[in-house]
Amino acid sequence: MKTLKVVKIGGNIIDNEKTLQTFIQQFAQLEGPKVLVHGGGKLATQLSKAMNVEVKMVEGRRITDADTLDIITMVYGGKINKNLVALLQASNCNAVGFTGADGNSIVSVKRPVKTVDYGFVGDVTKVNIGIPSLLLNTGVTPVFCAITHDGKGQLLNTNADTITSELAIAFSEEFKVELYYCFEKSEVLEDVNDESSVIQNINSANYKTLLENGIIADGMLPKMKNCFHALHGNVSKVCIGKTEMLFNENVLYTTLTL
Amino acid sequence: MKTLKVVKIGGNIIDNEKTLQTFIQQFAQLEGPKVLVHGGGKLATQLSKAMNVEVKMVEGRRITDADTLDIITMVYGGKINKNLVALLQASNCNAVGFTGADGNSIVSVKRPVKTVDYGFVGDVTKVNIGIPSLLLNTGVTPVFCAITHDGKGQLLNTNADTITSELAIAFSEEFKVELYYCFEKSEVLEDVNDESSVIQNINSANYKTLLENGIIADGMLPKMKNCFHALHGNVSKVCIGKTEMLFNENVLYTTLTL
Repeated sequence: MKTLKVVKIGGNIIDNEKTLQTFIQQFAQLEGPKVLVHGGGKLATQLSKAMNVEVKMVEGRRITDADTLDIITMVYGGKINKNLVALLQASNCNAVGFTGADGNSIVSVKRPVKTVDYGFVGDVTKVNIGIPSLLLNTGVTPVFCAITHDGKGQLLNTNADTITSELAIAFSEEFKVELYYCFEKSEVLEDVNDESSVIQNINSANYKTLLENGIIADGMLPKMKNCFHALHGNVSKVCIGKTEMLFNENVLYTTLTL
Repeated sequence: MKTLKVVKIGGNIIDNEKTLQTFIQQFAQLEGPKVLVHGGGKLATQLSKAMNVEVKMVEGRRITDADTLDIITMVYGGKINKNLVALLQASNCNAVGFTGADGNSIVSVKRPVKTVDYGFVGDVTKVNIGIPSLLLNTGVTPVFCAITHDGKGQLLNTNADTITSELAIAFSEEFKVELYYCFEKSEVLEDVNDESSVIQNINSANYKTLLENGIIADGMLPKMKNCFHALHGNVSKVCIGKTEMLFNENVLYTTLTL
């Protein structure tokens, strides 16, 4: 089985033109098949403000009404995704942009309304890797934004970390998958004030202790859940760290295993 | 050689939700390999107004400054393209959205400044059908919006009719290509007040007469130029007419030949 790198980048890389260009040049040179997944950064919020569309957040999550879905489709699927593809081409990395609708690659269901109506938000139900795999096997890099579809004509806003782990799991049928969640700073530290105190290995055993000691808490919890979900889905290796972990072997980062 | 239909739709279809849904359902059922190319309609102008970006037109052509390019990338490459792909999926037509950057499929050069600076507008220099062909041969329909790239990381706004004819010519290396320019009304009439007076055949010989008589004039001239350009590039057949020409054999339309 060939090794496939699935790399998720967040807003911190996308929002800064220089950081983005450097990242793309380095990412383009990574050897072997690779998939890029990107979040949205501040651009969607900026466009909402420019268009006088109210940004509604509940517990840190964006409520996606019809106008907001349009904005997300325009910003994630249009501006960010297409510029990433053009930049990759400029670095001699042949790429094709994807939403979950393209190639019917990620199907989701509109989240049922319980206490909160999240609007046009999708929970992934099925990943079809047929078309992305076909492209990977001809040397093309698929670039995914965080939009899925319900198979009935409706696009749906979907969490980028979730899409990444679901893609990684689905690709594990055909590849030995390494999953990389890239952040601006090292995220999993023994001492939050000491960037060098990176916890390099997390497994099911010491994870419990890290939770009990409060070292992993708050925003890291859903991320960790995605990581372990991926590992349980046969992803060979999940890494969390600064983007540099992909290109520089001296950078410390966290590797999760079961 | 297999027959490939390359179909261009304009704003009149995209701007009306009902018309669009009917079209997509019928288009999805067209047999054999097919490519869809779409223009932008009124949405780009609407978004420009909402964002207070000035719409500058010179001789009916949009001047594309950096803000306008962003809007076009968001509207054509994001909102319209991704919704078309989702609608096609809902009609069991597997589709993948493309700009010219995706798969490095359409390379262009920024139009040199002569009397007018059109800004980020591209003139097509090379079409690479490798990736779209690969998809066509697995039953996938590529959906192109009117955006190209210069290979150096820059997206460029490009005329949709031109993209369509250039794609049709490039695909003629591998397919017997039929090119369809779809309009709201029959465009080429003996008598402009009589919808039934469709000129059904135009060739190099009678084209001259139609020009001299003023039956083909103004906005039809660049369209005709694209059509003959395609025919000279080995496209087997070029048709102009109402969208229904694709689905209803009783509808009159214009076929161009050399």
